[in-house]
Amino acid sequence: MPHVIIIGGGFGGLAAARALADAELEITLLDRSNHHLFQPLLYQVATAGLSAPAISAPIRSILAGQRNVTSLMAAVSSIDKERQVVCLENGSEINYDYLIVAAGSTHSYFGRDDWAVLAPGLKTLEDAFTIRSRILMAFEYAERESDPARRLEWLTFTVIGAGATGVEMAGTLIEIARHTLKGEFRRIDPQQARVVLLEGSERVLGAYPSDLSEKAAQQLRKLGVDVRTGSRVTDIAVDCVRYANQDGEQRLASRTVIWSAGVAASPLGKALNTPLDRAGRVIVQSDLSLPQHPELFVIGDLAAALSEGKPVPGVSPAAKQMGSVAARNILNRIAGKAPEDFVYRDYGALATIGRKAAVAMVGKFKFSGYPAWLFWLFVHVYFLIGFRNRLLVMSDWAWAYLTFKRSARVISGSIDGKLGKPEEGSREDK
Amino acid sequence: MPHVIIIGGGFGGLAAARALADAELEITLLDRSNHHLFQPLLYQVATAGLSAPAISAPIRSILAGQRNVTSLMAAVSSIDKERQVVCLENGSEINYDYLIVAAGSTHSYFGRDDWAVLAPGLKTLEDAFTIRSRILMAFEYAERESDPARRLEWLTFTVIGAGATGVEMAGTLIEIARHTLKGEFRRIDPQQARVVLLEGSERVLGAYPSDLSEKAAQQLRKLGVDVRTGSRVTDIAVDCVRYANQDGEQRLASRTVIWSAGVAASPLGKALNTPLDRAGRVIVQSDLSLPQHPELFVIGDLAAALSEGKPVPGVSPAAKQMGSVAARNILNRIAGKAPEDFVYRDYGALATIGRKAAVAMVGKFKFSGYPAWLFWLFVHVYFLIGFRNRLLVMSDWAWAYLTFKRSARVISGSIDGKLGKPEEGSREDK
Repeated sequence: MPHVIIIGGGFGGLAAARALADAELEITLLDRSNHHLFQPLLYQVATAGLSAPAISAPIRSILAGQRNVTSLMAAVSSIDKERQVVCLENGSEINYDYLIVAAGSTHSYFGRDDWAVLAPGLKTLEDAFTIRSRILMAFEYAERESDPARRLEWLTFTVIGAGATGVEMAGTLIEIARHTLKGEFRRIDPQQARVVLLEGSERVLGAYPSDLSEKAAQQLRKLGVDVRTGSRVTDIAVDCVRYANQDGEQRLASRTVIWSAGVAASPLGKALNTPLDRAGRVIVQSDLSLPQHPELFVIGDLAAALSEGKPVPGVSPAAKQMGSVAARNILNRIAGKAPEDFVYRDYGALATIGRKAAVAMVGKFKFSGYPAWLFWLFVHVYFLIGFRNRLLVMSDWAWAYLTFKRSARVISGSIDGKLGKPEEGSREDK
Repeated sequence: MPHVIIIGGGFGGLAAARALADAELEITLLDRSNHHLFQPLLYQVATAGLSAPAISAPIRSILAGQRNVTSLMAAVSSIDKERQVVCLENGSEINYDYLIVAAGSTHSYFGRDDWAVLAPGLKTLEDAFTIRSRILMAFEYAERESDPARRLEWLTFTVIGAGATGVEMAGTLIEIARHTLKGEFRRIDPQQARVVLLEGSERVLGAYPSDLSEKAAQQLRKLGVDVRTGSRVTDIAVDCVRYANQDGEQRLASRTVIWSAGVAASPLGKALNTPLDRAGRVIVQSDLSLPQHPELFVIGDLAAALSEGKPVPGVSPAAKQMGSVAARNILNRIAGKAPEDFVYRDYGALATIGRKAAVAMVGKFKFSGYPAWLFWLFVHVYFLIGFRNRLLVMSDWAWAYLTFKRSARVISGSIDGKLGKPEEGSREDK
């Protein structure tokens, strides 16, 4: 029986595996982590609104009923596309007849990897826990601080990059400060906290039409976010962010910085020894395979694919669609049929901003505010994997909506060291 | 206004703070972590049944409505009882008029602290995450392992110590192997996993009457746990546990070991410079204060207290009761009244073993099996802090009970390093 390896259990990899459910082949799905992550809601884990289990489920549990899939928790160290072999982190090798690489993307700091420690990005559950702990600890440190200037540094939160994630983070952070923590502190007033959203370009949500960008900026400002577009970050330190705008070099005193400015393709792209685009994504053919390698497909955020001549965006519906097409093209090849071209069906775009605030674009319809937010809520709960998680998330949200409370305000670890991953310690100027 | 410092936001510390709600004094509650933990259910987090937020709530959130309390997330480095000063981890000092030390307990490895890395104990959320990740990873490694002997090592789980926590862990581990993971693996059969419970003394649940111990051992064996009493651990290595029983030295090949054999009082006891008992607990007077220091109280697991001449057990009801008495004795002193003696009201004892299995003792009544399990469920859900958590836990349990699934099977981190805290790496023989 032909052996298919799928690398990555995200939206693309899972869709590919499912599309092969009834096929006469053996599938091995490899992922570095044990869970599929519903990434669109990861910012809720980072902002203490949801627990990690609410948005993640074991990959092997999701695929338990599909008998032709073996799930392995394993990291891929290299791919030899001539020998058709995938090498794992422990040195072992697995042969394949067909390979689907769906390894996704990671943060990019544009060559300033030293910023990673100071301004964590949001891709994995680990990232979300780091950010959650930074946010909650900032208020704790502020409560203990007697120097007013330093206290202000602790109470200033900076989000870099006003794409969908940056906008969600900024909108939720201001809700935490203004509502969730109200009345819980004795020395500081959390409502005095500032959330600054820095964006290098001239508008927020740059991938959206400019009228929706404008609506989003308005809604953010109404919630209380300090939106600063045309502000290009030049340096990040423990106690401040420096950026340049039309008035020159600026310094923003802030001790909690979240990075949502850049995305880079998984380093596995390089391992394929094939042309990449500027963002490190693998340039694929119209059937999503590599040139000269009709048995090797790259999909999702790692693929630089074109659909009818236009670049396909790095969003989860695109990854799912690519997963199905790559799977079907494997079946086509086995059956000796011609492969089909990938055509992206764009269902629109949707970004939440905060309580009752969102922007949406469905076909030609654009809307914003409360209706867009309700639509966002519905879509996200609907697509969450697993009946039970959906219920859990809904009950968490209903509760959060009614009470302004957030259910996951837990920092695991203690202040005297166990919290102290090296990067945490280094934030403290000691 | 008199200033009361409470160290520790566990059952004892919180009870003390609440008992002082209407008093004309200023209270500062210090805790190293940001949350109160419902420790009786911590084993459920360690065994992937509950998420961390389901059993923990921010201390400042619990006490938000009590205006005379300031909560600070801070670690106490020392106490100067002559100057009446508490020193924090950052070097700052806080003066007090009254002090309640409720710093709890930690694991004890009986002088073999090197075992801590190989056999984690269960006290904090961090501990629970470590154990959860070890358990889930063991099955993942077993699925990847081709050598049958090594595979068996990965599929053998050892719990050391058959007190309440050890019995709960063993009973839940066998349920995971026999039911939860059923059908999710392709190369191993998780039902082949073995759970071995090692106990140095002659019976499980040594603090219970011997007929209940017998019932508990029977129920454990019925669930499938390999109960080995009279088995004193002599060494722990990466791939095995060595123990001595009546037949001599034994070697048990096992790569996942959980420690629930020993408890030691918080090291803060030593910082008080006052007589301790053998377990490091502070010997307190009948009013829970220290000799010559009527302003300083020690309560909960850290206190070696007597009630009508009998030692008080280290359980949460005792901690809560001590918290109230210490608080009242502060009010008595302020009012110039004589302090009251601590008298422990024993409501009984209750240990769960696994699905439909438990033992209970309420006054003179002893019962076991399904009725005891239902009683245990009711009591634990009832006492969980916060209306919402209670609902969450109940829905998680109802779901788990009906489907045998566990909702929190998430390992945060990936197999290629981010999981790799040093102690994890060292488990891999590399």
